[in-house]
Amino acid sequence: MQSPVALIPQLAGHIIAAGGKRLRPLLTLASAKICGYEGDRHVGLAACVEFIHTATLLHDDVVDGSDLRRGLETANSLWGNKASVLVGDFLFSRAFQLMVADGSLKVLKILSDASAIIAEGEVHQLLTSNDTETGESDYLEVIEAKTAALFAAACRVGAVVAERSEEEELALERFGKGLGIAFQLVDDVLDYSAEQQALGKTVGDDFRDGKITLPIVLAYRRGDETERAFWRRCLEDMDQREDDLPHAMELLNKRDCLSDSLKRASDYASDAREAMSMFPDGPVKQTLIDALEFSVARAY
Amino acid sequence: MQSPVALIPQLAGHIIAAGGKRLRPLLTLASAKICGYEGDRHVGLAACVEFIHTATLLHDDVVDGSDLRRGLETANSLWGNKASVLVGDFLFSRAFQLMVADGSLKVLKILSDASAIIAEGEVHQLLTSNDTETGESDYLEVIEAKTAALFAAACRVGAVVAERSEEEELALERFGKGLGIAFQLVDDVLDYSAEQQALGKTVGDDFRDGKITLPIVLAYRRGDETERAFWRRCLEDMDQREDDLPHAMELLNKRDCLSDSLKRASDYASDAREAMSMFPDGPVKQTLIDALEFSVARAY
Repeated sequence: MQSPVALIPQLAGHIIAAGGKRLRPLLTLASAKICGYEGDRHVGLAACVEFIHTATLLHDDVVDGSDLRRGLETANSLWGNKASVLVGDFLFSRAFQLMVADGSLKVLKILSDASAIIAEGEVHQLLTSNDTETGESDYLEVIEAKTAALFAAACRVGAVVAERSEEEELALERFGKGLGIAFQLVDDVLDYSAEQQALGKTVGDDFRDGKITLPIVLAYRRGDETERAFWRRCLEDMDQREDDLPHAMELLNKRDCLSDSLKRASDYASDAREAMSMFPDGPVKQTLIDALEFSVARAY
Repeated sequence: MQSPVALIPQLAGHIIAAGGKRLRPLLTLASAKICGYEGDRHVGLAACVEFIHTATLLHDDVVDGSDLRRGLETANSLWGNKASVLVGDFLFSRAFQLMVADGSLKVLKILSDASAIIAEGEVHQLLTSNDTETGESDYLEVIEAKTAALFAAACRVGAVVAERSEEEELALERFGKGLGIAFQLVDDVLDYSAEQQALGKTVGDDFRDGKITLPIVLAYRRGDETERAFWRRCLEDMDQREDDLPHAMELLNKRDCLSDSLKRASDYASDAREAMSMFPDGPVKQTLIDALEFSVARAY
């Protein structure tokens, strides 16, 4: 993220230093290792994956008008939307420069395809915002694109640098995809979690943005006319009052929308675990399974 | 620009159909031809170059809060900033997918380097905005990065697909760079041109945005204390009144800032012309020289 234009390392450093789970680069590193890779190309490529992710976070925070991320002020709230858009573009370009330096057209294809799919998913999500008629399949398309595609690509790239069979590439891709979907489902549940709220974490971001996540899709489908009118007022008309979030959380529980969303997450996690069966047991496989279990367990 | 997410072709189609000079893809096509290339790879790569440019325009209009481009409503004013940021990301990713499909790591390097430099230049420009102490070298660094880098890359890519000597690659790159700088200098002059205003074109966009272009750099350096106070009030404090733009245009003429900026443009154009001397005369070379002369002559 170095540049003679000082604002670039400053702003990029802020969001990168702010932490996060580094799940995506971990996937690239562990996938390469589980395929027996012994070189060091996976390190640079893991950085590419994280840069692409960071670029999308910078743009997401602008698009959502977010002021906080991981408990810290967002880059857009500190340096403005303009700088966040442009530094996001820079990190994205830098990721491609690193991939070009690595020199594999196969890796470039996997990650440029993933980038296009992510952008498509983000636009699709924008179109489902405030639309309570959004169905479960639309929601799944959105999260497969905006989240799972990069998880899947991060894993597949590990197999590619190890020059393993297409079967192993596809197994790791399937693992990443299942993990990514489960991860996003859990994220979307946590945003309405009373436990998270009790722990002092922020909840209700998606509600305030009018995002239609799976809990909402289920609640609208299962709700009676009064409940549907409530969801339309809050999420379509964006007419929200002080007690609306607690009431939303109540309805989601009453209609089993959070627990059923978590069941979906567990199903995708099982499929991801299943995809790993072709790889030998050992500490690297355990790391990947741990990442998967952590992603689901953080909801409980 | 096709995508199952209908807003993407809709929004991208709007900005692409809105026209523009298509100078950059023309440079790739003509550069390939002047190098004797007879295949069709240059066509797809010219599209990549235009997609990268279009992505930056979408993001620029968001960053500048522009409502009009080429006399039409901007994508951000029609579909909102969010969609413009995300569709820009999509077009950028799509450009890389097209390059990967083309399969040349050399082309990928040239265009990923250019993309990173463009983003750096845009951030640098953001930092010089509203700063009347900006010097000529800062200004030149900004326009070399944000404009000339893509012109230079567009030309060089033409020589690369033709598999010509590095000498020819570098000559075309130099042509593109000189043309790009001249083009941007003229653009920056036209924004204060009384002739453009008389033709009904919009002037004063840079002034209203507080951008520090070469005419302003010269005017501030050459101005007396009253004039400097005027520039600071308008461009630093952004305290602008109705008669300020006409007064700014008057000062720029009084201090020969527009004519001297155009002289700089002519110098860069001469250097670009000089770079073409190694190529044989003929209709393709004439096309490139015409593009160069048009870029400068539109100021007169």
